[in-house]
Amino acid sequence: MVIMMKIPKLYVENNIFEDNEPCEKIAVSEKEIIFLDSDEVVDNYKNTHKILYKVRYDDIRSYIDNDVLKKDIFVKYPGNHTFTHIKAGTYITCVLADSKTTYPILDAGSVVLRDGILATLKSNKGVIRYLKSPVSGTVFFMNEIFEGNNSIYLFAIVENSEVL
Amino acid sequence: MVIMMKIPKLYVENNIFEDNEPCEKIAVSEKEIIFLDSDEVVDNYKNTHKILYKVRYDDIRSYIDNDVLKKDIFVKYPGNHTFTHIKAGTYITCVLADSKTTYPILDAGSVVLRDGILATLKSNKGVIRYLKSPVSGTVFFMNEIFEGNNSIYLFAIVENSEVL
Repeated sequence: MVIMMKIPKLYVENNIFEDNEPCEKIAVSEKEIIFLDSDEVVDNYKNTHKILYKVRYDDIRSYIDNDVLKKDIFVKYPGNHTFTHIKAGTYITCVLADSKTTYPILDAGSVVLRDGILATLKSNKGVIRYLKSPVSGTVFFMNEIFEGNNSIYLFAIVENSEVL
Repeated sequence: MVIMMKIPKLYVENNIFEDNEPCEKIAVSEKEIIFLDSDEVVDNYKNTHKILYKVRYDDIRSYIDNDVLKKDIFVKYPGNHTFTHIKAGTYITCVLADSKTTYPILDAGSVVLRDGILATLKSNKGVIRYLKSPVSGTVFFMNEIFEGNNSIYLFAIVENSEVL
């Protein structure tokens, strides 16, 4: 049996494609989350809500600067049951799993404790090491980065601030 | 260092405490999620939204009957970034980890693939086995059940329908 995971959907505040063709949107405020259709107008919400537009999932790196999120983001995980909303200005922990062969253990949408295993790394010589999470939080993004000959995965984690 | 996880918050549609003292509420419709304060009146939303009331986290078992969710539920995971909303009528996979000593591996809020490890079980004689997930989905509830001498954990999983 082959198990294929669909990738999550990513929405970002006021992204540069705002004026282009219709796209799925989410209006968020302190107390509301409203899912808008691609052809729905946002005028009713523009003054009271932040409008988040659907963007390419891999573009997440454009919205993180110096480990801080520049824009509000919203992630819808496959199945459409589970969501993560993170506000601009939130500190993000980015972890790169970089080795000859990388096996990610946790997928986007997972909670992880500090020192929990994110990925298994196998070197050229077959040496196996584990990449552990430096923080306790939620892995809201996980994907392969296609650069060079190594197999590189990026894990983006938001700390769960209530963890002591 | 001690890592302590706060437990998630659980909200359920029209629960029996509805008329009692003020409690946190969430109004949900097909396209909206609105977080209401404990003293906020729900009259504006009653005709257009389902109103979900905060209940004891452990009460989840009261709302699952024959592996089907009887009421809409909403789970807020620690950190308040990540949420799961599951509609009444959704099929739920409940897995019990029951052994002399049980070490849960995945916490509530995690995604799991079919055959992913949920818990490590250690018998009286020290034999160790792994409890694997029968489905791919999101673990929206995980907690210890205090019954008898064994260490029993309940995992409730909603399948991510887009998984092939």
